[in-house]
This record gives sequence, structure tokens and C-alpha cells, in this order.
Amino acid sequence: MQSINLGILGAGLAVKHLHWPALHHLAGMFTITAVCDIDLTAAQEIARLVGGDPVVTTDWDEFFGNSQLEAVLISLPIHLNAAAIRAAVRAGKHVICEKPLAASLAQAEDLVAELRDAPVVIEIAENFHYRSDFKQARRWIEEGAIGTVVIINIIAAFWSDPTEGFASTAWRQDHQYRGAVIADAGVHQVAALREVGGEVEQLHAFTKDVHPVLAGSDSLVLNVRFRSGALGQLLFSGAVQAAEPSFDAITALGLEGTITVRHGVATLHRPNRENVEYRAEDARGYIGEFHNFYHAIRSNEPVVATLDEALADWRIIMGALDSAESRQVVLL
Amino acid sequence: MQSINLGILGAGLAVKHLHWPALHHLAGMFTITAVCDIDLTAAQEIARLVGGDPVVTTDWDEFFGNSQLEAVLISLPIHLNAAAIRAAVRAGKHVICEKPLAASLAQAEDLVAELRDAPVVIEIAENFHYRSDFKQARRWIEEGAIGTVVIINIIAAFWSDPTEGFASTAWRQDHQYRGAVIADAGVHQVAALREVGGEVEQLHAFTKDVHPVLAGSDSLVLNVRFRSGALGQLLFSGAVQAAEPSFDAITALGLEGTITVRHGVATLHRPNRENVEYRAEDARGYIGEFHNFYHAIRSNEPVVATLDEALADWRIIMGALDSAESRQVVLL
Repeated sequence: MQSINLGILGAGLAVKHLHWPALHHLAGMFTITAVCDIDLTAAQEIARLVGGDPVVTTDWDEFFGNSQLEAVLISLPIHLNAAAIRAAVRAGKHVICEKPLAASLAQAEDLVAELRDAPVVIEIAENFHYRSDFKQARRWIEEGAIGTVVIINIIAAFWSDPTEGFASTAWRQDHQYRGAVIADAGVHQVAALREVGGEVEQLHAFTKDVHPVLAGSDSLVLNVRFRSGALGQLLFSGAVQAAEPSFDAITALGLEGTITVRHGVATLHRPNRENVEYRAEDARGYIGEFHNFYHAIRSNEPVVATLDEALADWRIIMGALDSAESRQVVLL
Repeated sequence: MQSINLGILGAGLAVKHLHWPALHHLAGMFTITAVCDIDLTAAQEIARLVGGDPVVTTDWDEFFGNSQLEAVLISLPIHLNAAAIRAAVRAGKHVICEKPLAASLAQAEDLVAELRDAPVVIEIAENFHYRSDFKQARRWIEEGAIGTVVIINIIAAFWSDPTEGFASTAWRQDHQYRGAVIADAGVHQVAALREVGGEVEQLHAFTKDVHPVLAGSDSLVLNVRFRSGALGQLLFSGAVQAAEPSFDAITALGLEGTITVRHGVATLHRPNRENVEYRAEDARGYIGEFHNFYHAIRSNEPVVATLDEALADWRIIMGALDSAESRQVVLL
């Protein structure tokens, strides 16, 4: 196994809490050889965390100009993603970039049109596209285990604490991208909807802006009609004190049974039959996304979370915001 | 307490399983003195059940012409409700009639315009308007117990068994009213939405027709915006084998807490505080609706489930079907 020299651009919470544990788990696949952040202290902290004496810089051009780097992980405020992906591709680096891929639909469409045939691997790190619990749910549906799928429901309801963690970051509280927490977090649930239900054909949403600190819409009720004919319903709020906070509580209701996904466990329920359970080993998908990135670079394995997948997720989120503003059903 | 001579028109499952137990509980308020059904055997069966030797007839005119009757309970196939309510009022009887009040919105609007000022008591027996668990949820909301209400969610997902019970009746399987099981059963959840969230201002829905026996739409995803600014979301399906079948699982998510209603118990959840529970004594509301009917007749107590309440519920159900057909948001 030939290790990939990976540079990290953006030394924030996602790298520390989400990416580094996965990279550490896949030790041998990646060697962190550079860390870049406008905040030198933050970059140095990540450098210490990953070990091995990576180059630390606050200069993006120096970072992308580093000929040692074969690939880069981009984990920046959302509005910087498109420019950073372009810079990485221009520098000939393979790139794995945090979701969502851009700050607006137009920006995302331009980026994808430009880079779809780029000569490097590009992966948008939407971890929900790597969750084997969702893929098991989809497999059961395709096998007909619950008969005709009637409605797929997802409930994500939690409190975004503005004093600590992700919601405390300045770039989230005063965001420079469309959609606030609905875009930043809700794009995960939309990815889940597509993983389980397939492509979306029509949608409608209402939104609400209620969080006392986070600016912008934070709550969403979304109806979809899948291409398959099934209905979908997403409840999302990052501004509620839920009795049972959830981020990915999925229920697929069918004519002959129900599939639920909770906390990494997919369960198939059918009348008069024992439940069947599937437990995901990598319940959050972070290991899967770096594993895929490595093999896409080294073994020409197809990327799972492509630019087009990210664009399809983003179209639904941006369509939901359009629908809420225009009071119209949006056709995709 | 002066007992009311009550006639029963329609000797079906609702009378047997829902109304009679409540009337029996309120013995002394009502004396069943007549039973009418086109099926003589069914009428005789109900007559035996209620006891006291009521007049049994298959002739609607004879039934309404019975001068002994002070009030009538109408429990007929939905498409007959409007005509039966008119006949009752014309005969000078107080009337309690099963929900929904009519077979279409136009029919409902005509009926309500005509009878709003009728000189008799008219109650539409939507039992959800009598549920004290819902009223407690509303009271907590009005007291500010969960802060700003963000989203009210209701999930009703169950299998309509076409071989027994309500879904086995011919008039439901081959319905002569708009909306099939969404109208017949979904109107309850819409009443619950209004009980907990107040009036609805905007709505959108998609529907699906999947049940192998019941004709018409049986599944619905409905988004609403309440006049209060809160969002609402209803998932309804009478065609799914749900892992946990539900008919009235309500969750009101607020900025400072959550209220749930399950199986007659309303619970207030707030961070760092003990849950508060309220258990309804008459969890289904059937006793409440007859109690109110009695006191509306005898003590001029206001009717809770008025024609206008029923019309407001019906506007949402019919609006949801319009929205699904037109792919438009409906403004109420």
C-alpha cells in the first residue's frame, strides 16, 4: 500500500473531530504532510495532532504549490469551497472537500460543469453517501422486502448550541452561503433521502427562521415525490429542544413492511416475521469516504460521492429554499 | 337530569363500537327510542344492544317523522351526511352527525351556509375536537412552556385491513365522496393539527394511491404553515404495514422544549427539568362529544365541534387534495 501525501486546508472542528479519527484509522493510506489555515495556532494544533512534522503554513498559494502533496482535504467555511476546489485542481492535486460543494446553486452548477472531467480525483465528502445502514435499507427496498414503498420519512430535530461545537463558529453564525443551517446540515438528510429513496422529481417546502443566534432559516418541512412514485417527507430543525434529538431517524413505510434506520442500525419489520437487523460498522461513513478516496486515486475505484451526487443533493436543498420563498412546487 | 330521546340513523360499526359505549357511559342523558337502517337486521341488532325496546325502522321518513325523538345521531356513509343533516333540521331534531360533514367542499360550504343559524343544536362528531390531551398540549403552548413553536408533526401510519373492521365496509371500499381514506380518517389528524397548532394559512401536499383494495388516495404528505407562523407536517397513510402503527402521534417542537402526545398522554419535555405528564380520562373524546351535545341541548352550552369547525377541518383535507392534483400551494 503506497501512502498518499495529503495536505489539510482548514484546521477547524471537522478535521479534528470527524476527519482525523478516520484518517488515523486508515493509517498507512494517508500521510499528512502539510496543514494550512489562516489561523497559525489552529494549523499548528492540527499538525501536532496528526504528528509526523507536516509543513505548516497560513498561505494558501504556498500550500497548493507544495509539490510533495498528491492530494488535499478541504475543510473550510462553505463559501470558500468552490474556489479551493478550483485551486486544488489547477495545482494538479486530487481533492476531497467537505460538503456542500458551493455557496449557491449557480456556483455549484458552474463548478461541476467545469470540473466534471478534471484529470484528478474529486470527491465531495458527504459522509451520508457512505453509510452502509442507508445502503442496506436501499437494498431491502430493491429486493422488494417491504413491497411498494409508500412514504420515506426522515426526522432531524436538534438544538444548535451557539456557545460550543459546530454552531459556535463565526462563519456559521454569520454565513456567506445560501441556506444557513438548512444548507450546512440539512444537506446530509437530503443525501439520506436520495440514498434510500432514489432521485427526487418534485418538492415543496416551508421554512422558518427562529434560532436566536444563528442567522437565516433553520427549520424546514419538505415534501418530495421520488421518481419511483414514492412520497418523501423531511422534518429538519436545528433550533429546537427535542425530547429525543435526532439527526438521521429514517422510516421507510411500505405496503408490506417498514424499514427503520436509527443510530447506525437498519431494521426490517414485516408482519408475522422476525425483525431483521443490520448494524453498520462505519455508522457515520467517515472511514468509508477516505477509503474510497484512497482507492479512487490508487486503484481507479469509482468515486461514490461525486460532484454530480453533491449537485443533486444541493439542487434539492436550494429547490426547497426556492419553494419556500416562491410558495411554488419545484420540479427537478 | 332530563333524558333526551335519541334516534340512531345508521346501525353500523361506529354506533356499535364508538358511540354506544359513550352513550352507555352517559346513561341518564340519552334514551335510545328509535333505530333506523336500510338493513333491518343491522337495525335490530343495535336495538337489542341498546335495550329499552326502541322503534326499529328501515324508513328514513318514518324515522325523522317520529315526534318522540328530540335528537338524532347520524352515522351513515359519508356521502349521505349532508342530506341526513338537512332532513333532521327540517324535522326539528337536534343533530349529532359523524364526521366529515359532507362529500365535497362545495357540498360542505352550502350546508354550513344554510344551517349555521338553524334553530336546533348541530354537532359534527369529530371526536378529536374533544380530546383533552390535545387541549392540554395547546394550553402548554399558549402558556409559553416550549417557547416559540417551530414545527408540529403528526404521524398516522397504519394498515387498513379490507377483510374486517371499518375498512371492510362496502361504502368505504367504493366511496362516493372525495378523498377516500384520507378524507374519512385523515380529517381526524387535521382536526388534531388545528387543536394543537391553531388555524392553517397555507398548505401543500402530495398524495399516493397504493392500497390494493380501497379505491382512491390513501397516503399523504402534508406541509402547513399556521397563522401563528409555526410550521406543520402530517404524514398519513392507511396503506402501510408500520412497525409501530400510529393514528395520533403528535410532536410539537419548540425553541425551549417539546410536547408529545401518545396514547392519550401529553408530555412536556424541557431541558434540565422533569417531564410533566397529563393523562386524558376520555382519551378518544367520544364521551366528551355526547356530553357536550347533551348540555348544548339542555343547558345552552356552546357546541365545541360546530359546523364551522368541521368546515375548517374539511377545507384543509380538500385543499390537500387540490394541492396534490394541481401541484400548487393552497392558501386558505
